[in-house]
Amino acid sequence: MGNPISARFQSSAAATKIVAPPMVYISGEEMTKYCMEQIMDKWISPRVDTTKWEYYDLSCVSRDTTEDQCLRDAVAAGARVGAIFKEPTVTPTEVQKAKLGLKKAWGSPNGAMRRGWNGITISRDTIHIEGIDLGFKRPVLFERQAVGGEYGAGYKMVGKGKLTTMFYPEDGSEPVTVDERTLTNENSAAVTYDNPLDNVPDLAHHFFSRCLEADVVPYVVTKKTVFKWQEGFWVAMKEVFDAHYKQKYIDAGLLPKGELQHLISDAATMQIIKWTDGGFGMAAHNYDGDMLTDEVSQVHRSPGFISSSLVGKAADGSMIKEFEASHGTVADLWDAHLRGEETSLNPLGLVEALIGAMQHAASLEGGPEAEKIIAFTNNLRKVMHQLMVEGKGTRDLCGPAGLTTEQFIEAVAERI
Amino acid sequence: MGNPISARFQSSAAATKIVAPPMVYISGEEMTKYCMEQIMDKWISPRVDTTKWEYYDLSCVSRDTTEDQCLRDAVAAGARVGAIFKEPTVTPTEVQKAKLGLKKAWGSPNGAMRRGWNGITISRDTIHIEGIDLGFKRPVLFERQAVGGEYGAGYKMVGKGKLTTMFYPEDGSEPVTVDERTLTNENSAAVTYDNPLDNVPDLAHHFFSRCLEADVVPYVVTKKTVFKWQEGFWVAMKEVFDAHYKQKYIDAGLLPKGELQHLISDAATMQIIKWTDGGFGMAAHNYDGDMLTDEVSQVHRSPGFISSSLVGKAADGSMIKEFEASHGTVADLWDAHLRGEETSLNPLGLVEALIGAMQHAASLEGGPEAEKIIAFTNNLRKVMHQLMVEGKGTRDLCGPAGLTTEQFIEAVAERI
Repeated sequence: MGNPISARFQSSAAATKIVAPPMVYISGEEMTKYCMEQIMDKWISPRVDTTKWEYYDLSCVSRDTTEDQCLRDAVAAGARVGAIFKEPTVTPTEVQKAKLGLKKAWGSPNGAMRRGWNGITISRDTIHIEGIDLGFKRPVLFERQAVGGEYGAGYKMVGKGKLTTMFYPEDGSEPVTVDERTLTNENSAAVTYDNPLDNVPDLAHHFFSRCLEADVVPYVVTKKTVFKWQEGFWVAMKEVFDAHYKQKYIDAGLLPKGELQHLISDAATMQIIKWTDGGFGMAAHNYDGDMLTDEVSQVHRSPGFISSSLVGKAADGSMIKEFEASHGTVADLWDAHLRGEETSLNPLGLVEALIGAMQHAASLEGGPEAEKIIAFTNNLRKVMHQLMVEGKGTRDLCGPAGLTTEQFIEAVAERI
Repeated sequence: MGNPISARFQSSAAATKIVAPPMVYISGEEMTKYCMEQIMDKWISPRVDTTKWEYYDLSCVSRDTTEDQCLRDAVAAGARVGAIFKEPTVTPTEVQKAKLGLKKAWGSPNGAMRRGWNGITISRDTIHIEGIDLGFKRPVLFERQAVGGEYGAGYKMVGKGKLTTMFYPEDGSEPVTVDERTLTNENSAAVTYDNPLDNVPDLAHHFFSRCLEADVVPYVVTKKTVFKWQEGFWVAMKEVFDAHYKQKYIDAGLLPKGELQHLISDAATMQIIKWTDGGFGMAAHNYDGDMLTDEVSQVHRSPGFISSSLVGKAADGSMIKEFEASHGTVADLWDAHLRGEETSLNPLGLVEALIGAMQHAASLEGGPEAEKIIAFTNNLRKVMHQLMVEGKGTRDLCGPAGLTTEQFIEAVAERI
């Protein structure tokens, strides 16, 4: 038994602190890093034992110092652990590169994360606070294919001549002419990309099970009427839907037209503005998803009220999920803070992401401690919402009488 | 002198009817054709001699009967005449093909028109009625590059293997590898397209001169931060702006930041919702323009209040302009009309297009009759707007007390 006092202290600590399951915490910089440090100190650390978490610093100074080894390490850890929280990071411009004395203007880490975690979809959903009207009345769920499209395109600026794209099958069968065209301009961009479809069934299961759970009507959004190669995305989605979900949606009263609906992408830009009652989900290709989720976030007040989660698949078939806020490092508030001015940053998007990551870690581990994590984080969300409804939220929601960044964190800390 | 009575009659006819300069009139089908027939009969023909107009029937039955010769003829006529009005047409689905007994589901005529008229840009602007709030308070102008992007892409569905795109310069110099990639999915879409840039300076002049005239702030919209080949569009736009327009914009107080502004496409989806005061213009690539102009039309109530004009260039350097409504054939009202029900179609988009084409024809010809056409069409617009403001418009604007399709046409006819 050793020292009884020490034992009692340990036992007391164990009784008060919930042991969080393994999770990867990727820290960023500027205002959101400052805010998350406060939240960790005042909300999480006093109540949760986070010693199983792994920390990675993805600030651009850290990426510069380590020659991006920190990114490779964070991606490897995420693939191993399966649950990741990421703070907003800066993708430095040439101006920031000079200011911070970086060797290089390091690009967005998103590509490395999507590849490293076998990214399937980026889920971005509206965040709702009961009693506060933000935009959409009921949830809007979005699934954006995490791969494919012009993000990974190859290109060259070319003049007059012939452009030919050939495909050489791995099995050694006859080469296929994908495209042949004559370019007649003095100056053209020639662009080639691929849109992989193998992960669409996984995306479909993720999307349709989420829409069903959230009680919303699903739509598949493409431009396939004109961009004919997008037919494959629709076909794969519909196959999964018809085989696994159709009857469930009918039973739930979520299939008003009796069949899964397709929506043309440009029509979707209009419906997002019209359908302010919410209660719908959209699944789209990569670029359409980029455009349309930003539009959704504006109708729903701001990106501060949209969640963002990258969903991938580990080699063993389990889901890797990375959670982040939809917004950036909020540089303008950071500048104000550095000037000694008051700030009022709404941490909802950040904390929703942290809650998402902690709950996914809990679902991967299971057991009684995991249950406690889920209860703790649900309560955390409830307390934040309550304070906002009571007018003790940040100023974006509660006006000039609202609390500062620090006051709101303090107020939540007192109540949990 | 011949018969004095006949001479007097001719002279009287010449005095009352304005002789319209040559124009191409492309007719379509369904509700919009019906509405335009009434408008031609009651507004135009009694006052305007349209014998110099050329008529082409682009209904899908006509395209089917003539094996699309009517489209080729209309395009050739448009290239020769330079001013075109087009009614909405049906691009038949497989269902419509069967119903109408067509040999083929004829595709959209847009591609043939854009090629045949050397299309540079599709201009789509908000229509405003003084005294009625439609959405944007001040004009929003849009320039969508009429060529390039995925609309003309080549593709193949492929499996695992190697994808290679090569460029062979016309001058016989060394081939250039545009892109080389390994595809690892069982099923991928491989896509190649080109984005020609030679017409961007023409687009820039059209855009910047229009924004200056309309007193709005211009933005160039691309995704060039990620899609690096879109840099060329921005560079070409900025070169024209800096060389020819910058000082004029500064003098007009339309350059708040001192430089031409770039806007990232996904941020543009947000600004369109935020900037409801209007007073801005956007110029974008083909697909971004497709998405964003539909979004603009929804914020500005409906596509009924957005103009649409395809601007091309004839071999002699003069501008070819084709005008159409932003909406389709309004099939639901056509079905109601065929069932004998009352309809209330707002013809503003159609008539704005007709006015645009008649005025462009007048500007190409010049002279006193052209002046009269411009005055006549300006008055026509004024009368339509007046009636709408007085509550004698169609029901979309004036509620259930508003007029039917036929009553509104009659009311305007009485007042002009």
